[in-house]
Amino acid sequence: MNADDCLFCKIVSGKIPAEKIYEDEDILAFMDIGPISDGHSLVIPKHHCEWLHECPPEVLSKVASQLGKIAGAVASAMNSDGYNILCNNGRAAGQLVKHLHFHIIPRNVSDGVFNRWPSYKYEDGKIEAISVEIREKL
Amino acid sequence: MNADDCLFCKIVSGKIPAEKIYEDEDILAFMDIGPISDGHSLVIPKHHCEWLHECPPEVLSKVASQLGKIAGAVASAMNSDGYNILCNNGRAAGQLVKHLHFHIIPRNVSDGVFNRWPSYKYEDGKIEAISVEIREKL
Repeated sequence: MNADDCLFCKIVSGKIPAEKIYEDEDILAFMDIGPISDGHSLVIPKHHCEWLHECPPEVLSKVASQLGKIAGAVASAMNSDGYNILCNNGRAAGQLVKHLHFHIIPRNVSDGVFNRWPSYKYEDGKIEAISVEIREKL
Repeated sequence: MNADDCLFCKIVSGKIPAEKIYEDEDILAFMDIGPISDGHSLVIPKHHCEWLHECPPEVLSKVASQLGKIAGAVASAMNSDGYNILCNNGRAAGQLVKHLHFHIIPRNVSDGVFNRWPSYKYEDGKIEAISVEIREKL
């Protein structure tokens, strides 16, 4: 299932080194070498897939079953006040490596990382209309 | 497992309405009423837990097994170029409702949502030292 030209598949196979923090049969967790906060880590399935919605549900289940434990260890080790789990899908969403990965980003009060949340309100009737469109795709 | 004063538990129990897009025995997905992009949705376990690392692995597995399918439907319905999955843990990380939830945020090229990624490099030896600290917590 490895992709020959995939950076993360090469980390899984050992062709490229990484600072690993957790590994089992199905998943690998390692330090991000370009962190946005100290302790910033990545959790990936060993199975190669690019998009979350393309990844087999059983693979996602295995990742998620360990994700909380790993995030708790990262937060504890860094004495952080909280953490973000972030999974960017597609270049438009900030995905740089085309192998599904979950960022664990330790956070502290007023650290200034991700402080933008540009929320707005829908105009009347729009939320219901969009909801119908989404349900039709499910 | 419901918490009496939890907004999302009240949505699960039907005491507070929401625009639902998916529901099964274990999870619920509904539209965020304060979106940061059109179609912004939330996926939650019905089981009440505040933090990802406190949530039972089998509950996380159930959420994750459906998360890809729901995200794919949201992205397809919105004709988006990509999407972020974001799970904020703790007030310092932007968590407002203390019931674990995964944001699905449709994204388009140059939409200006989340365009900040303040990455840096570790000084020599620091990534290895932090890695040891994290592994000791696992």
